[in-house]
Amino acid sequence: MISKVAIVGAGNVAWHLAHALKDAGCTIEYVCSRTTDRAEELAQSVNSRAVNDLSHISKADLVLVAISDDDTADVCDAIDAQFLVAHTSGMTHLDNISRERKAAFYPLQTFSRDKEVLMTEVPFCLEASDEGDLEDLRQLAQKISDSVQDVSSDQRQRLHLAAVFASNFVNHMYHLSEVIANNDNLDFDLLRPLIREVAGKINSLPPAQAQTGPARRKDMAAVKKHLEMLEGHPELRELYQVITNSIIKHHHGE
Amino acid sequence: MISKVAIVGAGNVAWHLAHALKDAGCTIEYVCSRTTDRAEELAQSVNSRAVNDLSHISKADLVLVAISDDDTADVCDAIDAQFLVAHTSGMTHLDNISRERKAAFYPLQTFSRDKEVLMTEVPFCLEASDEGDLEDLRQLAQKISDSVQDVSSDQRQRLHLAAVFASNFVNHMYHLSEVIANNDNLDFDLLRPLIREVAGKINSLPPAQAQTGPARRKDMAAVKKHLEMLEGHPELRELYQVITNSIIKHHHGE
Repeated sequence: MISKVAIVGAGNVAWHLAHALKDAGCTIEYVCSRTTDRAEELAQSVNSRAVNDLSHISKADLVLVAISDDDTADVCDAIDAQFLVAHTSGMTHLDNISRERKAAFYPLQTFSRDKEVLMTEVPFCLEASDEGDLEDLRQLAQKISDSVQDVSSDQRQRLHLAAVFASNFVNHMYHLSEVIANNDNLDFDLLRPLIREVAGKINSLPPAQAQTGPARRKDMAAVKKHLEMLEGHPELRELYQVITNSIIKHHHGE
Repeated sequence: MISKVAIVGAGNVAWHLAHALKDAGCTIEYVCSRTTDRAEELAQSVNSRAVNDLSHISKADLVLVAISDDDTADVCDAIDAQFLVAHTSGMTHLDNISRERKAAFYPLQTFSRDKEVLMTEVPFCLEASDEGDLEDLRQLAQKISDSVQDVSSDQRQRLHLAAVFASNFVNHMYHLSEVIANNDNLDFDLLRPLIREVAGKINSLPPAQAQTGPARRKDMAAVKKHLEMLEGHPELRELYQVITNSIIKHHHGE
């Protein structure tokens, strides 16, 4: 059973997982980060101690590495061989980690520091080199979430890519929509009911069937007019064109 | 006061507005559409009569034209001069309509036939060539919605463009995310909590501040890996590249 946890990292994912694990009854033994201020702040909020070097970690049932995808493999490999090390990266394949006791503990959700997340709904995607470790991680994840899945490294990378479209790219569309509205002193609030409806609609209709708009209708006069309105914004114009072409391709097979 | 309404069109917008107006106490005198089957069906459901020619419309306080953007101006101009004609198109400038009594009655929302919409929340963007007509349309819209705005043709076109980003493009990202997940037999349901969170998050954070992910962090190793995973899908690859560049530009100023 996992009850003593060391957290490596002090960013958004580390922050939310540390709190969820503490709420689930775990002791957060350490928060280890090179960013001392954030480590101190997180450590204080979960009644833990901040350390700035991996070598300070002792007595932990799990070392949870919640840092950038780029650094995950190296940091996992730098942790003492005795520990079960699990990372939270969507992109880091277990094959790229050399240590023996290795695992993934990937929450398929977006986390911002100042935004509460309903953790019981977050799908936790688990994988471990050792079957006993996997079972322990499963029990741990089930204390936090109602959605716990076994997911291979290949599948996890694929889910992460799908998540970039469904999350990061979607949010960027909101951002650009706000930029366009604000350029004309229009209130972005006018677009909020639409945004809610679009996100809710795919719970009752498949996304392909929920699609509406000029590109879906192949209303080329509206597309042309929009492109004219975006003259002087070459970046938005290219983006509009590429996404419109993609919608037409998927819905009209061209 | 507007109480007798003729609806031109039998598509999604016509369908939802006809029902909302009927529920608000209006009589739907006619449903006029060249698509006879759909006109019959809509007419029946709102206790109206279907006609297939504009010349059949008589006695109506308002003729509401809810058809494709492309055809809106021509159809508005083909309606007898005596009537107040309002269209629901985001893109049709009042300047492009020749008739004297002309107006816009634009609901800023996406409508699908089989999906109920909370009409009280839908922003109705109004404009009319005549001040008295505008006031009548305002009173009518207020029977349906709590969000009624005066919006000029230029602003309406700009809002429509912003809505394409916030709605059509967002939904297409959901669609592509599903395609990517399904390509690998992964359940799109795993992505639903993420989609909900992203849409909800911008109610407490501005979209720019809510942005997360590889491009936001300028994590180029993850970007490179994703592009590799999309080899063999040139369309998705281009889209990934263009949107990623745009995120980096907006967040890192490059």
